[in-house]
Amino acid sequence: MQSIERYLEDFEVGQKFSSGRLRVQKEQIKSFAAEFDPQPFHLDDDAARNTMFRGLAASGWHTAAITMKLLVESDLKPAGGIVGAGFDELRWPLPVRPGDELRVESEILNVRTSKSHPQQGLIKVRTTTLNQNDEPVQVAVGNLVVPRKAKALRSENS
Amino acid sequence: MQSIERYLEDFEVGQKFSSGRLRVQKEQIKSFAAEFDPQPFHLDDDAARNTMFRGLAASGWHTAAITMKLLVESDLKPAGGIVGAGFDELRWPLPVRPGDELRVESEILNVRTSKSHPQQGLIKVRTTTLNQNDEPVQVAVGNLVVPRKAKALRSENS
Repeated sequence: MQSIERYLEDFEVGQKFSSGRLRVQKEQIKSFAAEFDPQPFHLDDDAARNTMFRGLAASGWHTAAITMKLLVESDLKPAGGIVGAGFDELRWPLPVRPGDELRVESEILNVRTSKSHPQQGLIKVRTTTLNQNDEPVQVAVGNLVVPRKAKALRSENS
Repeated sequence: MQSIERYLEDFEVGQKFSSGRLRVQKEQIKSFAAEFDPQPFHLDDDAARNTMFRGLAASGWHTAAITMKLLVESDLKPAGGIVGAGFDELRWPLPVRPGDELRVESEILNVRTSKSHPQQGLIKVRTTTLNQNDEPVQVAVGNLVVPRKAKALRSENS
């Protein structure tokens, strides 16, 4: 696979990027929860049935972490890596269930040069995580730090 | 330890809750990254030195997951568990380094009854994750779903 690295100048509002798919196994849901989110609805099938979730569901942070994995392996590929400066929005419209197969669609919402760090910029990206029925299980709007091309900087300084 | 469960009526704007502490080991940073955020600055000391992070740093999603663990074990204790309806803000002002010891302070910013689900409400909580130098490594403002007391509901329906 060819590895394309994108600089700030390579991103445009409206561009969309897709990921591969990842199946979430019941044992992974339970082991992530045991380590990071030890609550009945993430840990135990029987206990989960009597909660707001009406059955075992992945921790939202597990969904977020899986989303990151899919995003890193997707064709978004900012030069220097995926470095989040922060999120304006993060929500989980539907629970992730054992056996769900997740994928990520991301769309560029904004591209701007940093005033304080002219060698880089920020792209605002909406990342939607979908299950096998194309239902969104996570929607995140975040800002990523992306380096500018050295050429663009040189022409400004000349 | 006595387990106090708090209902919507038990929360007030301005209340603060604290967590215990958790030390982040280098091997945990690398293993989380290998599974969920496989990028050089989270995986390898040498490779990390030449990146924006200037050394190995935990994935922001690892920091978020550790924050959740500390929050679940803190004295916040909403009845029915910590169930996030979504975040208005999530950012990582400083990287988490190997050996950092994290703790969480949370503050109630808003308390309101749900119009669509009168048996529950929402609390808006600012959760600040601090390192051993009391520097914030994560700031999150999220909304949690909290059940109301049955008594409050009965008096409205009578």
